[in-house]
Amino acid sequence: MVSAITTFTGGQHGRWRIVGNEVVAGEPLHPAERLDVVVGRVGRSSKTPTWLLRGIPSYERYVNRRERAELEASSPPLGRPEATHAALIPITKSPAWWDLPQDERREIFEEQSHHIATGLKYLPAVARRLYHGRDLGEPFDFLTWFEFSPAKAAAFEELVIMLRETREWIYVDREVDIRLVRDPA
Amino acid sequence: MVSAITTFTGGQHGRWRIVGNEVVAGEPLHPAERLDVVVGRVGRSSKTPTWLLRGIPSYERYVNRRERAELEASSPPLGRPEATHAALIPITKSPAWWDLPQDERREIFEEQSHHIATGLKYLPAVARRLYHGRDLGEPFDFLTWFEFSPAKAAAFEELVIMLRETREWIYVDREVDIRLVRDPA
Repeated sequence: MVSAITTFTGGQHGRWRIVGNEVVAGEPLHPAERLDVVVGRVGRSSKTPTWLLRGIPSYERYVNRRERAELEASSPPLGRPEATHAALIPITKSPAWWDLPQDERREIFEEQSHHIATGLKYLPAVARRLYHGRDLGEPFDFLTWFEFSPAKAAAFEELVIMLRETREWIYVDREVDIRLVRDPA
Repeated sequence: MVSAITTFTGGQHGRWRIVGNEVVAGEPLHPAERLDVVVGRVGRSSKTPTWLLRGIPSYERYVNRRERAELEASSPPLGRPEATHAALIPITKSPAWWDLPQDERREIFEEQSHHIATGLKYLPAVARRLYHGRDLGEPFDFLTWFEFSPAKAAAFEELVIMLRETREWIYVDREVDIRLVRDPA
């Protein structure tokens, strides 16, 4: 498990070109041209990004042993050469969500909303990584990151639409959907 | 739920006098005379503490609805006038613990080790608060804080001994036990 803080900067620099920046709920993020992903804490002054979001991969909060095995068996690595499209979807959940006990969060997350099962259907097409920001005092509780090839872009749209229709999403207070295309290496 | 980062400094200042500092597992903490507890991020230079530990109360990782209700019904606040004794027990768990899926961590934590049920037996005598440091990149995963009156000191020893004999404690890599007595207000 990678456990270093990772920083996503929106601004004029970075290997990823921002081709979409839509607010789904709550406050938007300012428009920016490019995105950079840096492992570590980047100082707010470096290259003066328009915005800067941080998260840490951390440990899993809901996945059980069986689900873990299924996820590991079909999860591709990040950085596949053909995965030139990406999405960064920062999400903040409501106080009501965080006030739920663990068993009820798990129940809504998987038994009602099938978050893990749905994600599994889109593996290995869509590679993903979850970064946690809540305990860091970041504006977003989570930074969700997805990578896929242009051929799988429609599948990714399906995945996003399905998740947003779930009961879990009632607890999403803020969500921004940033789409990206990678420059050739 | 309080969600601000809290800083514990060991040094020459603070309302709590350090009367015990024993390493239970792993690296010790340097000797210090006094402890201060500050809500917020204290700069490393402020009053040059010997050591400085940070954590955030965060949300609950294992407690279910029934357990939450029981805990809330019997948990006293911090800062009771008669609770002049305290313990700060910073703990770090092993990579093997963090690599377990959620359901197995819960199983060890409660069904096997009865961590919540044991703690409940000592409420309201022993007030407690848990601070999370792992995602902050702190040296300790948890800072556990307990307050009790001198009359309940023996009960607190019982609680600590019982927890250290559990299966959960096999996963504790580092633990320091700091005992404190509060100055009169």
